[in-house]
Amino acid sequence: MTSLEQLQSSSPRIAAESEGIGIDELRLAGRNHALPLEALRYDVTPAGLHYLLIHYDIPYVEQESFRLRVEGSTSLELDLADLRARPRVTLPVTFECAGNGRARMAPRPVSQPWLDEAVGTGEWTGTPLAPLLREAGIPESGREVVFTGLDHGMEFGWEMDYARALPVEECLREEVLLAYEMNGSPLLPQHGAPLRLVVPGWYGMTQVKWLREIRVVDHVFDGFHNAHAYRLKQEATDVGEPVTRIAPRALMVPPGFPDFMSRTRVVDRGPQVLTGRAWSGWGPVERVEVSADGGSTWSPAELDPPVGRWAWRGWRWTWDAEPGTYELCVRAADAAGNEQPVDAAWNRQGMSGTSVQRVPVVVR
Amino acid sequence: MTSLEQLQSSSPRIAAESEGIGIDELRLAGRNHALPLEALRYDVTPAGLHYLLIHYDIPYVEQESFRLRVEGSTSLELDLADLRARPRVTLPVTFECAGNGRARMAPRPVSQPWLDEAVGTGEWTGTPLAPLLREAGIPESGREVVFTGLDHGMEFGWEMDYARALPVEECLREEVLLAYEMNGSPLLPQHGAPLRLVVPGWYGMTQVKWLREIRVVDHVFDGFHNAHAYRLKQEATDVGEPVTRIAPRALMVPPGFPDFMSRTRVVDRGPQVLTGRAWSGWGPVERVEVSADGGSTWSPAELDPPVGRWAWRGWRWTWDAEPGTYELCVRAADAAGNEQPVDAAWNRQGMSGTSVQRVPVVVR
Repeated sequence: MTSLEQLQSSSPRIAAESEGIGIDELRLAGRNHALPLEALRYDVTPAGLHYLLIHYDIPYVEQESFRLRVEGSTSLELDLADLRARPRVTLPVTFECAGNGRARMAPRPVSQPWLDEAVGTGEWTGTPLAPLLREAGIPESGREVVFTGLDHGMEFGWEMDYARALPVEECLREEVLLAYEMNGSPLLPQHGAPLRLVVPGWYGMTQVKWLREIRVVDHVFDGFHNAHAYRLKQEATDVGEPVTRIAPRALMVPPGFPDFMSRTRVVDRGPQVLTGRAWSGWGPVERVEVSADGGSTWSPAELDPPVGRWAWRGWRWTWDAEPGTYELCVRAADAAGNEQPVDAAWNRQGMSGTSVQRVPVVVR
Repeated sequence: MTSLEQLQSSSPRIAAESEGIGIDELRLAGRNHALPLEALRYDVTPAGLHYLLIHYDIPYVEQESFRLRVEGSTSLELDLADLRARPRVTLPVTFECAGNGRARMAPRPVSQPWLDEAVGTGEWTGTPLAPLLREAGIPESGREVVFTGLDHGMEFGWEMDYARALPVEECLREEVLLAYEMNGSPLLPQHGAPLRLVVPGWYGMTQVKWLREIRVVDHVFDGFHNAHAYRLKQEATDVGEPVTRIAPRALMVPPGFPDFMSRTRVVDRGPQVLTGRAWSGWGPVERVEVSADGGSTWSPAELDPPVGRWAWRGWRWTWDAEPGTYELCVRAADAAGNEQPVDAAWNRQGMSGTSVQRVPVVVR
């Protein structure tokens, strides 16, 4: 493992003001796909439309030889049959990449270049983590739990299996699952087959895929993805604040139909029911507002009944569209008092970029 | 419908030499995802890993009210149950986007910015098209068959449902299907649910999704996607040659493991079995060659048994990796005498850009 100093010198490059997206960013964008915005119409995102962020390669895992190791006061080893024989829970949960919005930041941190759409809702089925941890035994000295995947790669010269840690108390929440199914089918390779972590409310980096080991440790884990990558910093040398739960955000299904290249929308005049989704990991979504003038004035949207505490919430607003050119925006606020900003604060890693979506529309 | 003159003035912009990928191209790249290269390991591409090119929005189609209209000498209307009651065929078929490779062209046509990975193999199930066309009746004067989808959008100011035509004789090939299943499951929304065309050997633009109408016409169809978009041209005002079948291409699973941002591969010294896939729409793949020195020298790879006439073919080659820095390449040739070029010829629409894949590797 490398020193904190070494890590602090290894942060994304910041793009020059006029610099377009590079081939390295494009290569990531081709692999790590977003939710097509029209797929916001589904309560649960169909297979293949949910966003994906895969740091290294998708590992190929033989289900038969797969074993999960759990290291607490004692050691457990479980195969898939053992996990499937345990209590089974299904939960709809919205995941979002912590880097969502990065490519719209100015200046732009050079990494996975998300615009607005790194989100999706899965119906995750698995077994609760807490009872398994208690079976392994949580020592008095236990502070964090480290979750390690089978995906292996390099970051700024540092070689690692992907790993993330969570405080013990977060791991004991009853809705934290070890999931082996998504939307009623066995996990797909790209979603972590055969087993992944599901921590409702937290950003995607927490949802460790291809999970091979769970280990209780007596210290604050200093792996790359906790100590460095997923932090809010202003300077590369800052220690920064950890990225944790999902900040509120709303998105809309773009109305009308698109121009292929610009994605500008063409809408017929008259009443248009705008719809979309809003979510927050801090509390239930309580308010969604829509603007047809680029964020100058806002109108409250109607909220659909919640699909569950941890999934996005539908909203709708009727727009009386008159001929002209518009920029539609939408924003969300949660019951914990968090409001989505029109323009989010910049940070050095390009995290939690929740500036509002802007949809250009021509009404004819 | 617009005039040919109007269409000829509407071609992709050509990027300046130093111009990075724009936000418009990135927006398309986030929607239209590529095959992660490690997924070349699967004979049949799992759901969600197959490449996608969706010109406009994914339409939402109610299966119950869906009807396919077939217009020949007579008119037929079929619902999904009618189609499922007809003879059923399953075929593994490799699809590739005609624009694959566009983002590596110099200068770069500004459109969907594919690198190398716009490919995938599905196991498509449906009913053969030819008997249905014969039932509707093919008039003596019939020259082409126009396939129209439910996806609707704008191209250079011209509004349209996506439509593509094929010569009648191509439509009568026994392996041309109207498909309602992929990989043993009902079509996913993004793959054309509930019904799509499958024309083995032809590029992806032929495989019309969300198919609503099949119409025999007595002329050469002049719709945008036949007369203009999918053509090999040097100048925007050229009529150009139509893009038809898939030119030979090979890709490899990048060996070792990646650096997150650069995707440079790290490989341990010693024998490395390189594997991948090769395909051609013109004839069976007959030869695959690998280069470890950026294309200066080539060695023949071993070919796996074919998975079927219309699907990609596996290949393997053992590389004795010595410490150093390398650029791995692979190329394919088919039984019809077509060879993949190291550097493909440029064209104005960025079509069929089959320049060889280049994989940077550090052996340690």
